[in-house]
Amino acid sequence: MGYIKLKQKAFFHNLDYFSKVCGSKSKIAIALKDNAYGHGIEQIAFMASKYGIKHVFVRDLREATIASKFDFESILVLYDIPTQKQNNNIIISINSLSLLKKLPTNSICELKIDTGMNRNGLYLDEIQKACEIIKEKNLILKGIFTHFCCSDEENTITKEQEEIFQLAIIETKKYIEYKFRVHCANSTGVFKVDMNKYDIARIGIGIYGYLDTMQDKYLQPVLSLYAEQLAIKNIQKGEHIGYGSKSFIASRDMIVSNYNIGYGDGLFRANSNKQRKIANGLEILGRVSMDSFSVESNDKEVCVFDDVTHLAQIHNTIKYEILTNLKQSIKRVIIE
Amino acid sequence: MGYIKLKQKAFFHNLDYFSKVCGSKSKIAIALKDNAYGHGIEQIAFMASKYGIKHVFVRDLREATIASKFDFESILVLYDIPTQKQNNNIIISINSLSLLKKLPTNSICELKIDTGMNRNGLYLDEIQKACEIIKEKNLILKGIFTHFCCSDEENTITKEQEEIFQLAIIETKKYIEYKFRVHCANSTGVFKVDMNKYDIARIGIGIYGYLDTMQDKYLQPVLSLYAEQLAIKNIQKGEHIGYGSKSFIASRDMIVSNYNIGYGDGLFRANSNKQRKIANGLEILGRVSMDSFSVESNDKEVCVFDDVTHLAQIHNTIKYEILTNLKQSIKRVIIE
Repeated sequence: MGYIKLKQKAFFHNLDYFSKVCGSKSKIAIALKDNAYGHGIEQIAFMASKYGIKHVFVRDLREATIASKFDFESILVLYDIPTQKQNNNIIISINSLSLLKKLPTNSICELKIDTGMNRNGLYLDEIQKACEIIKEKNLILKGIFTHFCCSDEENTITKEQEEIFQLAIIETKKYIEYKFRVHCANSTGVFKVDMNKYDIARIGIGIYGYLDTMQDKYLQPVLSLYAEQLAIKNIQKGEHIGYGSKSFIASRDMIVSNYNIGYGDGLFRANSNKQRKIANGLEILGRVSMDSFSVESNDKEVCVFDDVTHLAQIHNTIKYEILTNLKQSIKRVIIE
Repeated sequence: MGYIKLKQKAFFHNLDYFSKVCGSKSKIAIALKDNAYGHGIEQIAFMASKYGIKHVFVRDLREATIASKFDFESILVLYDIPTQKQNNNIIISINSLSLLKKLPTNSICELKIDTGMNRNGLYLDEIQKACEIIKEKNLILKGIFTHFCCSDEENTITKEQEEIFQLAIIETKKYIEYKFRVHCANSTGVFKVDMNKYDIARIGIGIYGYLDTMQDKYLQPVLSLYAEQLAIKNIQKGEHIGYGSKSFIASRDMIVSNYNIGYGDGLFRANSNKQRKIANGLEILGRVSMDSFSVESNDKEVCVFDDVTHLAQIHNTIKYEILTNLKQSIKRVIIE
């Protein structure tokens, strides 16, 4: 089933870069959510902890349990409501008043503020009510945060969202006397706000080596996907390969190998009418099968990709999706 | 993170159908590979065992370990080579002579015969050598099989592949004196071969309720995907939703909810320029996020899909990929 290599050096390089941008490594909260964007939550948490990262965010309580094996000061859970109080370093994000009401008493929470993304989180005029519930239920408000919808776009929307977030901070302080942390920036957002005003930034795709902005060139992709040879074939001119009698017909005699990564691993089969290449430039011949694909090669092993830019373009999507789509069942290996 | 419902009644209905087509349920080997095409290997193995299925096939030894918890007579491992002899009900598929040489002595194996798919497996002229290695290493040949590349197409290719497979049986019998099982048909192949000639058929997509042939109408989809409300919003005309300032702009005031399934769960974000609908016909508004999507609804829960035909069309792919792409981390619930 092939395997994934995670380059620690590239990961640390990216963390160095964002430490500088944010002011220090203690201001970085890294994305461990969705299996660390497909990289492998265990392996990324291990490396992040080794680097000295103190803050992480995860999707749900299952991922929080995995992150809890490491010595993080805070683990922010974005989309899950526990049925009992969690450990003191686990913070539950509140996406709506109705979810806040479900939180067990004495829980530690952060309010997510909707500053114009119109997806989830509380509007400004819901903060007062939220703070009342927090007091009634004896909850601890650890922080408030927002998420930028368009920080990779060249317009004033991020600025406008930040202004609303500043109002949210003022509004929350009316009701909460103790200090709480505030954060808004994501990977591209850190270049648009003054990080002195905020306690942490939530960095996701950037620490994995990608940005859709000019800063992309300072980063190094962390993940590469490898596949191992299952069989080697002497294909004659006119023969077809894989599924479908017309999906690939050899125009000449070829030596072709079949490798053990397929769409069952998360390598898209979709859009198979488009020409796709693996890392060394060889074209994938015909359709990607569930468990394998074929290229003109006799190598025992090939790198499927070490940069997902090409596949993201082919599939009309963002790099996040190509990475996050990689299945948890693929073996991950950390290399220096 | 939403959840998956697995309809036992639909699964048993499909098994009843294929039992009739194949002659009996003892002739069905079901696909547990790739997490049972995304359905959940544990849950499908449990239901299959309950129904009385005796034969299954998996992708690798990790999946074989899970299937071993149930009382299957045979577990065929398609793409993995163990480093030590396995239990007697675990059969290792041989995709090439070089992999056969790596098999531990006394192992139980099946030869995969390449009858024209040109992907993996042995050609006719490699059988003699394979049988020599089998004898040298004291392996047990449990069977030989092939895979059809085009059994859903209207042409003579499956017939030609079957003829080559029949020659492979004759060839193998020259060197192996004891009885071994033979199989070739997949879900659509069973309608093209005489099942009296074969010991089992390997049924995958069919038992999950889909075929790309006229028999599709006799089957019932087993899996449906559900998402739970994270937040509800009163969106004003002109406001945008989710990522990107232009991906969705409300043309009128709307009540919109955000639900907890996203591309991190395997619901494609790709091709987000195309209009996508959830099961009740509501359009997904804007882009699918990693952990959520929005539709015009105030329901606490929505069915994302109970039939993947629509999504397969949108993404220019097969139904298998939409299903197999669903992550293992999503909770699965069996319903009657």
